[in-house]
Amino acid sequence: MRILGLDPGLQHTGWGVLESAGSRLRHLADGVVSTEADLPLSTRLTQLHRALATLLEAWRPDEAAVEHTYVNKNPAAALKLGQARGVVMLAPALFGIEVAEYQAMEVKRAVVGNGHAEKVQVAAMVRHLLPGARLLRADAADALAVAICHANHRSTRMGWAAARQRAAAR
Amino acid sequence: MRILGLDPGLQHTGWGVLESAGSRLRHLADGVVSTEADLPLSTRLTQLHRALATLLEAWRPDEAAVEHTYVNKNPAAALKLGQARGVVMLAPALFGIEVAEYQAMEVKRAVVGNGHAEKVQVAAMVRHLLPGARLLRADAADALAVAICHANHRSTRMGWAAARQRAAAR
Repeated sequence: MRILGLDPGLQHTGWGVLESAGSRLRHLADGVVSTEADLPLSTRLTQLHRALATLLEAWRPDEAAVEHTYVNKNPAAALKLGQARGVVMLAPALFGIEVAEYQAMEVKRAVVGNGHAEKVQVAAMVRHLLPGARLLRADAADALAVAICHANHRSTRMGWAAARQRAAAR
Repeated sequence: MRILGLDPGLQHTGWGVLESAGSRLRHLADGVVSTEADLPLSTRLTQLHRALATLLEAWRPDEAAVEHTYVNKNPAAALKLGQARGVVMLAPALFGIEVAEYQAMEVKRAVVGNGHAEKVQVAAMVRHLLPGARLLRADAADALAVAICHANHRSTRMGWAAARQRAAAR
């Protein structure tokens, strides 16, 4: 099961791909897609879309996950982030895979075990859980963190499903 | 010259197509793309994208225009609108056509002649300028208004270019 994690931004969108088998995780790739700030918005969104389409083609993930953005900034900044986030969520959906959303607290709890962990603790734990991650930028660490969170939720759900099946078979 | 005007929204995106020849305008079509509120965000964005791709295929506009959204609402609402706006701006760009952005005041000035006009005045003037417009929802009127604004800017630009050429030929 390959999971693509995404951390959307108009300037920089972090991404990471991992493989999950039960509770085991393996790092496959991570990076950042950047757009050119001096180009028109529609061109930047096209750059972002094309880069994500190439990534999806190359890594063929089975599922995708993105953090549910909490915006405490001004509305103009939220609109700008939203424009990138819409395009980022569209790409996997057009590729035919589901995009799960997780609250920041869920991601921190899944990775560090504490919903109020600091950003540096999350990045350190991502490095620990996924040896080989490049994490050239913080965005890539955030993207892998949400992918780890999704992998955890998946294996928990599968564990429950197996337990239900065993109970039904009795 | 066919112009597609767009008024983005996650729930309802207004659209309108007009033909512009010099200062003459002709209404071709308008409508609203709606998405289902109870579906996941990525699915709604896919519905929006697919509907716009179908519109672009059907009407083959030469250029597109969208209003530069001013957000005075809360950041969460701005993020939501931004997500739809990003997807709306991406569709024409992927189709290979430019997406111009205009401030709300420019649109009002182009349509009504007054940058502080009321919404109802804009809709009434759109009806007057484009007989045949259906305008089932206010979003469609706003979409046609930004298309009219773009047509005006185009013919003004072309007027200048022609004047420059005449001056150069003298």
